[in-house]
Amino acid sequence: MNDKNKFGFLDRTLKNLRNAWKGIAAAEYNESAASMQPDLPKIDAERLLEQMHACLETRGGEVSARARAAALGRAYLALNDVGKIRFLQVLAENFGVDHRAVDEAIHALRQTTEPVSRSIAEQNLRKTLEAPRIKLLIQFNALPEGVKFLVDMRADLLGLARDDKTLKGLEHDLKGLLVTWFDVDFLELRRISWDSSSANILEKLIAYEAVHAIESWDDLKNRLDSDRRCFAYFHPRMPEEPLIFVEVALVAEMSSNVQSLLDESAPLMDPASANTAIFYSISNAQKGLAGISFGNFLIKRVVTSLSNEFKELKTFATLSPLPGFKSWLYKRLEVGDKALLNASDRKALQLVDGKSGGAKGKLKAFLEDATCLESPEASEALQGILTRLAAHYLVQEKRGEGELRALDPVAHFHLSNGARIQRLNWKGDSSAKGFEQSVGLMVNYIYKLHHLESNHEAYTSSGKVAISSSLRSLM
Amino acid sequence: MNDKNKFGFLDRTLKNLRNAWKGIAAAEYNESAASMQPDLPKIDAERLLEQMHACLETRGGEVSARARAAALGRAYLALNDVGKIRFLQVLAENFGVDHRAVDEAIHALRQTTEPVSRSIAEQNLRKTLEAPRIKLLIQFNALPEGVKFLVDMRADLLGLARDDKTLKGLEHDLKGLLVTWFDVDFLELRRISWDSSSANILEKLIAYEAVHAIESWDDLKNRLDSDRRCFAYFHPRMPEEPLIFVEVALVAEMSSNVQSLLDESAPLMDPASANTAIFYSISNAQKGLAGISFGNFLIKRVVTSLSNEFKELKTFATLSPLPGFKSWLYKRLEVGDKALLNASDRKALQLVDGKSGGAKGKLKAFLEDATCLESPEASEALQGILTRLAAHYLVQEKRGEGELRALDPVAHFHLSNGARIQRLNWKGDSSAKGFEQSVGLMVNYIYKLHHLESNHEAYTSSGKVAISSSLRSLM
Amino acid sequence: MNDKNKFGFLDRTLKNLRNAWKGIAAAEYNESAASMQPDLPKIDAERLLEQMHACLETRGGEVSARARAAALGRAYLALNDVGKIRFLQVLAENFGVDHRAVDEAIHALRQTTEPVSRSIAEQNLRKTLEAPRIKLLIQFNALPEGVKFLVDMRADLLGLARDDKTLKGLEHDLKGLLVTWFDVDFLELRRISWDSSSANILEKLIAYEAVHAIESWDDLKNRLDSDRRCFAYFHPRMPEEPLIFVEVALVAEMSSNVQSLLDESAPLMDPASANTAIFYSISNAQKGLAGISFGNFLIKRVVTSLSNEFKELKTFATLSPLPGFKSWLYKRLEVGDKALLNASDRKALQLVDGKSGGAKGKLKAFLEDATCLESPEASEALQGILTRLAAHYLVQEKRGEGELRALDPVAHFHLSNGARIQRLNWKGDSSAKGFEQSVGLMVNYIYKLHHLESNHEAYTSSGKVAISSSLRSLM
Amino acid sequence: MNDKNKFGFLDRTLKNLRNAWKGIAAAEYNESAASMQPDLPKIDAERLLEQMHACLETRGGEVSARARAAALGRAYLALNDVGKIRFLQVLAENFGVDHRAVDEAIHALRQTTEPVSRSIAEQNLRKTLEAPRIKLLIQFNALPEGVKFLVDMRADLLGLARDDKTLKGLEHDLKGLLVTWFDVDFLELRRISWDSSSANILEKLIAYEAVHAIESWDDLKNRLDSDRRCFAYFHPRMPEEPLIFVEVALVAEMSSNVQSLLDESAPLMDPASANTAIFYSISNAQKGLAGISFGNFLIKRVVTSLSNEFKELKTFATLSPLPGFKSWLYKRLEVGDKALLNASDRKALQLVDGKSGGAKGKLKAFLEDATCLESPEASEALQGILTRLAAHYLVQEKRGEGELRALDPVAHFHLSNGARIQRLNWKGDSSAKGFEQSVGLMVNYIYKLHHLESNHEAYTSSGKVAISSSLRSLM
Repeated sequence: MNDKNKFGFLDRTLKNLRNAWKGIAAAEYNESAASMQPDLPKIDAERLLEQMHACLETRGGEVSARARAAALGRAYLALNDVGKIRFLQVLAENFGVDHRAVDEAIHALRQTTEPVSRSIAEQNLRKTLEAPRIKLLIQFNALPEGVKFLVDMRADLLGLARDDKTLKGLEHDLKGLLVTWFDVDFLELRRISWDSSSANILEKLIAYEAVHAIESWDDLKNRLDSDRRCFAYFHPRMPEEPLIFVEVALVAEMSSNVQSLLDESAPLMDPASANTAIFYSISNAQKGLAGISFGNFLIKRVVTSLSNEFKELKTFATLSPLPGFKSWLYKRLEVGDKALLNASDRKALQLVDGKSGGAKGKLKAFLEDATCLESPEASEALQGILTRLAAHYLVQEKRGEGELRALDPVAHFHLSNGARIQRLNWKGDSSAKGFEQSVGLMVNYIYKLHHLESNHEAYTSSGKVAISSSLRSLM
Repeated sequence: MNDKNKFGFLDRTLKNLRNAWKGIAAAEYNESAASMQPDLPKIDAERLLEQMHACLETRGGEVSARARAAALGRAYLALNDVGKIRFLQVLAENFGVDHRAVDEAIHALRQTTEPVSRSIAEQNLRKTLEAPRIKLLIQFNALPEGVKFLVDMRADLLGLARDDKTLKGLEHDLKGLLVTWFDVDFLELRRISWDSSSANILEKLIAYEAVHAIESWDDLKNRLDSDRRCFAYFHPRMPEEPLIFVEVALVAEMSSNVQSLLDESAPLMDPASANTAIFYSISNAQKGLAGISFGNFLIKRVVTSLSNEFKELKTFATLSPLPGFKSWLYKRLEVGDKALLNASDRKALQLVDGKSGGAKGKLKAFLEDATCLESPEASEALQGILTRLAAHYLVQEKRGEGELRALDPVAHFHLSNGARIQRLNWKGDSSAKGFEQSVGLMVNYIYKLHHLESNHEAYTSSGKVAISSSLRSLM
Repeated sequence: MNDKNKFGFLDRTLKNLRNAWKGIAAAEYNESAASMQPDLPKIDAERLLEQMHACLETRGGEVSARARAAALGRAYLALNDVGKIRFLQVLAENFGVDHRAVDEAIHALRQTTEPVSRSIAEQNLRKTLEAPRIKLLIQFNALPEGVKFLVDMRADLLGLARDDKTLKGLEHDLKGLLVTWFDVDFLELRRISWDSSSANILEKLIAYEAVHAIESWDDLKNRLDSDRRCFAYFHPRMPEEPLIFVEVALVAEMSSNVQSLLDESAPLMDPASANTAIFYSISNAQKGLAGISFGNFLIKRVVTSLSNEFKELKTFATLSPLPGFKSWLYKRLEVGDKALLNASDRKALQLVDGKSGGAKGKLKAFLEDATCLESPEASEALQGILTRLAAHYLVQEKRGEGELRALDPVAHFHLSNGARIQRLNWKGDSSAKGFEQSVGLMVNYIYKLHHLESNHEAYTSSGKVAISSSLRSLM
Repeated sequence: MNDKNKFGFLDRTLKNLRNAWKGIAAAEYNESAASMQPDLPKIDAERLLEQMHACLETRGGEVSARARAAALGRAYLALNDVGKIRFLQVLAENFGVDHRAVDEAIHALRQTTEPVSRSIAEQNLRKTLEAPRIKLLIQFNALPEGVKFLVDMRADLLGLARDDKTLKGLEHDLKGLLVTWFDVDFLELRRISWDSSSANILEKLIAYEAVHAIESWDDLKNRLDSDRRCFAYFHPRMPEEPLIFVEVALVAEMSSNVQSLLDESAPLMDPASANTAIFYSISNAQKGLAGISFGNFLIKRVVTSLSNEFKELKTFATLSPLPGFKSWLYKRLEVGDKALLNASDRKALQLVDGKSGGAKGKLKAFLEDATCLESPEASEALQGILTRLAAHYLVQEKRGEGELRALDPVAHFHLSNGARIQRLNWKGDSSAKGFEQSVGLMVNYIYKLHHLESNHEAYTSSGKVAISSSLRSLM
């Protein structure tokens, strides 16, 4: 999608919003709001503040207040980055928690002596701790695409305003609201397909795919062919916006290479005879929902759904990257970790031609040169060493001293879901990105429904990682 | 709907729920939950408590915790009233706010000296004030009809446990959750019609209609004919359950009598030529949403929708009861309010035959005897007196000393929406209920879009009631 | 449905049609057509003829011709019975086959000597044999509910005009058109249910049910409960009109009594554990489709659909009436068929009290007195005799000398579908109609997918009837 | 779409068909049919013939016969071109009209003396003239995509078998069936959009667009933007297959150049303010429906639909090619038509540099050299001459001596719809194809609803062409 198209998309969204407002937001609010300058100069900021007060006081009744809020929302969309920050600051600074009210409620609480009045005092205190801006955020829901508006506003907050402490508080309030509204059981699991999904939704897959970029509509079509499945979660009020989606290949044995999976000229598989489902890509689609996770639910619901549709499926596995492996290894080499390479590693490295230096030096040189894998000799030596180190990295390395969470983020995701590390695949990803992240290694995590709970418990309570016997023998 | 059907309905609901659980909730949870006795004896209550702890700790991961919660929800539905109270008590008593944590957070808050740490301390305090049971309530959303489950659980709390103070706190938490989930802009306005709505939904109109009972399927069909409209709000996760609905007649002039409106043998009107829309019935359908109001939004959206569909519509009015009029009048007569009747009233009453006693005595006697309206003489005398008193009642009587809210609840609803009292209709409702509530009087409230805001403001800020000139001349 | 409602229904249909025409049919055509008198006097009939000519010549182009035809269709709907007959006569008499053209085409055909020109001549001849009125009939499809219009026009033709030979030809042409348009593979099988079907469709089930009348909405709801299924065929252009529907009960053993099946107070069955599906009612809904049959396809598709949904189902059977049994028996008794009763029958009858006369006389008397079944003694005697005679009637009696088709129409339907006669049920239908048709006897036909073809072939080629061993032993 | 994709598409279609058959067609039929060789050798052709006989005799009942026919249809799809021709020949040669039966029916007809028996004799004769293969064709409708199957079979017949006279008869029968099934009032008009249409349908627009090729998904998206509309007709049994579609641009004035219309970087128009709708492309999508026309209905319905949606639209016009102009002009020049160029034309041509020869020679040279339009001088001279000749070509040139139909096929289509020739646009299409067909000229036809009928009548009855005053002044 070129830039022209991107803006076309934005234009269209704006236009849709505008059309939908007609007859909902009273015209005068819109007019007033529409006249604001893109960078929201002081005079406009003051009018904005006044309008926000009117919303909060529900002047003219609740219906009017919502119409007014919708008009403000529209104005927000028309601002530039400077204007947006100012808008958010007006909202954050003027409608925060009233500290005096909090202090009074605390005072009242401390006077209570018996349980019932204590409970009431606590309820009152809790109310004072809810910033009035939350009510305003809710009122933006009056926009035709109000939920998407708030999700995108949070994306703005996370992006534009990382270090602004007042905005931080607003972002915290907005996240709280979205957590409640995006409860996983409100979401709808929908299959995405070439035959039933609109181009509008499919285009978003192309835009949002975060693991293995979709190169073209032909590539996309291939990923939606009859031996593939793609599922996404949707919110009922954002029916055209996938929240998270997963791409699955139905195959005859556990995949070890992602390029083969994505090869458009590969023959079609009869899905009814497939015994393995490979989850080869999971992408979050909404920046504004960062930290609000549905991935574990998605995978398990898709496993259930596929089990029902295809009776022959026995194995559910991923084909996943190790995004942090190479940079971890690099750091280890930098700090001169003695235990990293054993004697046979060193010997193997020394026997390989093509790079000078000692074992470590050679290893570092290879890590910087993607062509090394093309030499059978170098590749063979590296395979043994790197596969073992990758196993160690996945299983042993934690996010920090005393932490239980795996250092690798993808590993942590699947392990906390209760999956098991099944197999490491040398030359699993021959793309530049694959070499960049993990020297081309990929890993299969396996989802066995009956082991998920106990694996999860072992991992979350003691950091224990479930691994296959082949992984164990590697280490 | 006879009792058999009611229970059939329940049975079916239960069965649907059960079917939907299959494959979602792990079998073992269901089994354990299913074995509880209907009145939840102590031993079961203890197992329940243990299961609730497991849910809150998300043992086995979030997916498992949700499945477990769903099983508990199913168990709840199978309990009798005693068992339900016990279930709710277990939930209320064991998962309330941790007072010690609150005290500690207050202590920490009081140590802060600068704004940012104060804000963080407030956020922390707020968190301690959220009872853990709220998380459990949210987990029940995993039930296939989880939202309906929680709405009905709140109806149970409001019904079974009015005076139980612990349950009160739970009810308060649940209401807070439902307020957020039932934000009006999540709701879908749908037209209900004979041609497009399922019998399942139509049957609920019959069950939930609260103003003018629907006598039969023929009566219902008549209310959905081509010169009628019925609209309801729905929640996306309760697609078969109207939340609130309004019935509208498209007519040639403002209606003054509800029996004429509901007459099945009346000729059809061509809706395209109607100039007036009469809102003759608005009913809330969900007890569990008491206190969470959508009525004002519903009326205004329906006005907008009808305006778009029928270009000839000029007047949007209600035909409404005065539910508190007669009991208010009675009380006034009891306490011997001197100002109630003026000289000409007294004279008029004395001239009417059929009851003995003084003016007040006669009036009280007439209020107890519905046949009085059949005598032209008595009816004429009463019309003058009662219409004037009703006007006074609607416009002047407030809920209490110094209050701005109208005493009559229906009046309060429409006035706070910004409507105007337009006309009082003598013999507007000849049913027994009509006589019982208001000696057969009905009132038209008028909705003029351009006056709604100012009327609302005048009413809510100073209690001023918008009335027509004919009403004014009555008083 | 009372008369008022019936007409309301008609009114609404008319109004819908009228609304839909707007903007489709040019206003002037409508006006001209609308001004016709209900009984279509001569002057209007002449205008009609002129308009029909304009349609056929596609004056103003095809789009205009269709609009014109739609206006004529609307005019038809507004006529009374006399007017309709005249309308149909105008159509039948003026737009039949052109005999001269036929003779010329025959002449040309007879001149041909070689195959190719013969084929072309045949094509030409065939064209001359297609009456121009067929084109006009097709143009009525421009009505918003054009297909339903034509179906109903055929119902009119079959009803109003049974003995009119010109109309007969028109009816024949219309049937030919409907046969092509109602090809079974254009039809959609839809499940009808309380939760998903509109009241408008459900109301039609009540109106069209031809076997066991639906008494009320409660009765209907019971027939659509979770242990019941109802399926209907629909045409894509008549989406609100079932063409034929079947009602099925999911039960634990083959039903022998229809009142038990329809008992609203009977407990619900868990459909997942049912082993038998009973087809207890099949009704054609459109008179205008008489002679165009889908029943065999419907049953087999429903069997397939139910097999997929409920894995435990093993038996698919009907519970059917023997509509012609009693009248056949009566005739046999009238003509004094000696072979009808054997010695033990006579003896059994003589032993029963309550009626005077010989064996035959007693039997006739019992057939006229529904209370006879209440006496255990009489009932027992009659059971033996009538069950045997019914078996003979179903299996041996044919529609005429040398015919292969069973005399009983229901038997013929199921036997030609390949079903087997499985069991006769004494006191299977205790309704008045049940006694009137068959002294309360009902029959189970069984559908075994693997025997349908051979049973069908045996029956259609040699009249051989498939029966169970119990039936065989009866005879 | 590359070849790989094409076959992928076919594969998928086949697979879908196969899946749908499961449980419909009895397994044995499929097996037998599936075993046929791709080129249908004699032994297989004999088995095929036998199966066709079984279908026609409805052996095993109608349901079985349909299943058998579906299996034959599947076999057909798996054949190569040689096999398909043989399959079609078996069908055409063995199931044609029975000439003897025809002769007998003619004989019987000639014996009749009075009207009623004549009518019956005609009906009988007509029946003998319907080839039995028509019944077989109808049975193929049992395929899950049976209608599409028959449409494609006709495309095969038109393509593979142009000169085979037996197949010609089969094609004629099939066309007759499709004419009845594709009655325009069975078709559904659907809007095609980026937001609501599946990629599967959109991909077909790319494949079927016949006027201005769609270059990419970006080009397509631009043609579906908010200031564009695309509508297509669909058959209810081919819901994924557009039959014919039209692309419309909403603009501020009548377009004169197609490249501007298709420019992806052009700014978006607010459709609500557009006053003109330009129909710039109409494409038939199904080869198998050749000769069955919906174009006139499509345009008029789209005009109506757009009028309702956009109140500001005043002008409905096309921007159309003159596909036969250049070849006509060439021929005129070849035959030395003296009247073609007048004196001032000759003079103008002589003054232009760049080509040698006389006026005619120069003109021919220019017609062969697309760069000539780049020279302002040549372009100006050519504009005057060619525009006038094009006007003459459109208005005066007929398909033949004494014919009323315009020589240009696009002109004939719009003129017979009742449109008017409004304007000729010099440099209206700068593509290679545009120069090839008409030296870059394009024409606007205008649709005025109130003139369509009279224009149509004048054109079809006397060949009179409606033209604007500017066109008139050109000539």
